[in-house]
Amino acid sequence: MQELNIELFRNLIKTKKITELREIFEEYNSVDIADNINELNEDELLFLFKVIPSYNSAEVFTYLDQNAKEKLINLFSNQDIQKVLEEIYTDDIVDFIEDLPTNLIRKVLRSINKETRNDVNKILNYPEDSIGSIMNIGYVELEEDDTCKEALAKIREQGDKAESISYAYIVDKKRTLNGYISLKNIIMSNEKEVIGDLMEKDIISVMYEDDKEKASLIFKKYDMSVLPVVNKENKLIGVITADDILDVVTEEATEDIQIMSGSSPLDGMYMDSSVFSLFKKRFFWLLILMISAVFTGMIISKSESILINIPALAIFMPMLNGTAGNAGNQTTGIVTRGVSIETISTKDWGRVVWKEIRVALLLGIGMSICAYGWMWIEKWLGIIDVTDTSLFFVVSLSMFISIVIAKVIGASLPILAKLCKLDPAVMAGPFVTTLVDALTVALYYGLAALLLI
Amino acid sequence: MQELNIELFRNLIKTKKITELREIFEEYNSVDIADNINELNEDELLFLFKVIPSYNSAEVFTYLDQNAKEKLINLFSNQDIQKVLEEIYTDDIVDFIEDLPTNLIRKVLRSINKETRNDVNKILNYPEDSIGSIMNIGYVELEEDDTCKEALAKIREQGDKAESISYAYIVDKKRTLNGYISLKNIIMSNEKEVIGDLMEKDIISVMYEDDKEKASLIFKKYDMSVLPVVNKENKLIGVITADDILDVVTEEATEDIQIMSGSSPLDGMYMDSSVFSLFKKRFFWLLILMISAVFTGMIISKSESILINIPALAIFMPMLNGTAGNAGNQTTGIVTRGVSIETISTKDWGRVVWKEIRVALLLGIGMSICAYGWMWIEKWLGIIDVTDTSLFFVVSLSMFISIVIAKVIGASLPILAKLCKLDPAVMAGPFVTTLVDALTVALYYGLAALLLI
Repeated sequence: MQELNIELFRNLIKTKKITELREIFEEYNSVDIADNINELNEDELLFLFKVIPSYNSAEVFTYLDQNAKEKLINLFSNQDIQKVLEEIYTDDIVDFIEDLPTNLIRKVLRSINKETRNDVNKILNYPEDSIGSIMNIGYVELEEDDTCKEALAKIREQGDKAESISYAYIVDKKRTLNGYISLKNIIMSNEKEVIGDLMEKDIISVMYEDDKEKASLIFKKYDMSVLPVVNKENKLIGVITADDILDVVTEEATEDIQIMSGSSPLDGMYMDSSVFSLFKKRFFWLLILMISAVFTGMIISKSESILINIPALAIFMPMLNGTAGNAGNQTTGIVTRGVSIETISTKDWGRVVWKEIRVALLLGIGMSICAYGWMWIEKWLGIIDVTDTSLFFVVSLSMFISIVIAKVIGASLPILAKLCKLDPAVMAGPFVTTLVDALTVALYYGLAALLLI
Repeated sequence: MQELNIELFRNLIKTKKITELREIFEEYNSVDIADNINELNEDELLFLFKVIPSYNSAEVFTYLDQNAKEKLINLFSNQDIQKVLEEIYTDDIVDFIEDLPTNLIRKVLRSINKETRNDVNKILNYPEDSIGSIMNIGYVELEEDDTCKEALAKIREQGDKAESISYAYIVDKKRTLNGYISLKNIIMSNEKEVIGDLMEKDIISVMYEDDKEKASLIFKKYDMSVLPVVNKENKLIGVITADDILDVVTEEATEDIQIMSGSSPLDGMYMDSSVFSLFKKRFFWLLILMISAVFTGMIISKSESILINIPALAIFMPMLNGTAGNAGNQTTGIVTRGVSIETISTKDWGRVVWKEIRVALLLGIGMSICAYGWMWIEKWLGIIDVTDTSLFFVVSLSMFISIVIAKVIGASLPILAKLCKLDPAVMAGPFVTTLVDALTVALYYGLAALLLI
């Protein structure tokens, strides 16, 4: 197969080589086609979607970038929209109309049939980040007294609207979820066997209003590939598939990293975010953190006399603060992540702190010895001018104590946050550094005043 | 169904209620059973696995924690091991024996049949982090001239050894991968249709020696649920399923977070890591970062006369360094993550830096105004003692410039690292802070010397 690129599409469109274009849409992967036509102009895009049958173009449409989708919806007649969207699963429709301008949302909703419109509206109304907002409403339903043969017939019938048919769900007349069975199991069994005898009853399900993070934890814990979604009465209303969860897991980790880096998480992709939206997500946190540095400034201000006596104290502050801050961050990073993916629970607090104290003692001893040696090397190399080398001892001692403090704080803050139902990631990174900074400076100046003056 | 807990199992084992135990293993989810029997003592565990048929106990075994698995392997006869392991997919066997002590690995390898042993050995020899090391070697193979009916018969035949039968792969006589077809498609088609006409040819596959991260990026890009693995001659040798990838994605994000927090990534779970292994993973980075603070210390040392002239300079250093460091981290965090999940590519460098410069100008203006106001408030509240308020201007100006510098560095380092084939996460966090620290201090002292003395 030849390499796809935008020039190829441009030429085929210009020369109206419709057969070749149809062949490409038939044979290539939709993601790759979409990647290469995003930048076509409006006329070219419209031409393409007019000549390609919708069963081939619809999936490509779902992988276009938002900009190209908007262009097309704008140009499409209501009938075009209908043709394309009836080939797309409801959750994918919801995915892309959520980000459309209001007038285009209305145009789309006007164009799709009533049943789909109701489904779309229902999903649009689920709270953001809820399982309902990402679930798929197509799945295969069976009854307990179906035979395997009947089940296969039902799967053939219902399969079209289901994104995944790897599992079928067994419901009673009231649509209460009573069991599940894998398509594999149905196929591997004798066609006369009854679903009720074969089905599994240890149902793992989630509620539509639960946070989607909960779904991702369950997926991981139980190694699932499809997860049923129920309402309060345990009635089946949808399913979540592994590819939805892969997006959730990636997005959550990205959000955690953004928060741990001291910024509110972005609503969309970084490359698509405007300068002003980035500014807004970051300004508040920078300000809060700047103000929280007041304690450190205050301590230094009140200890100015010590600094005037021993100005060399300032030389080692970056090294000391840096090391303590880094020591704290090492711990907060790992503990925050552990709390977030639930490999560390709040009742592990004691064990985590005890582990960190022991690690801190080892690191404290190692680092303070190295720091002591390193300061002598710096002096010997002439990098720094320090006459009173007893200061080296104060720095090393401060480093030892501050590493222990930093590790205890670093281990405790994320778990404390979780206990207070706050996001542990907010506590990580910058806050730990700020708090550790203040304590380290107080300790350092205190020890210097005590031992050197 | 009653709530599972360890006491329930203890009692049923003590009173030898074998029927009840079998019922539990029949009806409950294996993950939940495993969670509740991990802490049983050796005799109880052995009793349990002796009385439960292996088709029910094998899956529970895979979900036990490593400690319980070791206990059981130790106690099991070779025959017991064989019985349990023949119910487990090869990749799951590999997963748990990798972490066993050598004598137990040998015991396991001696107990399994030759074919499985060869498969296990093959996977064990794939490099760590390669796709081969996590792939599944069971899958369904069809030929182009099979009819759908024949295909279903083959699926029934091969299905037992395959973890997923959602997709079947079409190979020729030389086992070259020529196409794929979903089970859904086979079931929905007429049984007389020929696979060769129905199959998709736009194969997305990975090589067994590729990094598993590559597989996760492909899964996300193409929304896949199973991905075929081939060798250099494009011969099918295995598949990767979504649940394997979910683990990879989670693990990768965890590693990124650990590295960004200034520590080498752990080999296993935090709660299972020994104090000494944590020490080893962290010490080196703390040391490197401490030594890299030498520049900041040097600048301060060489500027001691400025500090003696204006000791109040030290008061605002934590606030200034903190803000610049945080500003840098905000950017590195998001850019590192973007580079890592490939939503930002190295050729976006210019666009990213330009975006960050504009955000930095906005943040710089906002923050330096706020800082100026805040210093007056601090003075007015008596938190700090500063007489020469022209220092406030120097702090604000330094803040403005250092935010811009920090953002440019924060945006550039991860992309530079990627260009140099280094892990972008290593550059994030601590290194940015250290570099930004040195530059900020130089700038601050420089401006103070220029404007105030």
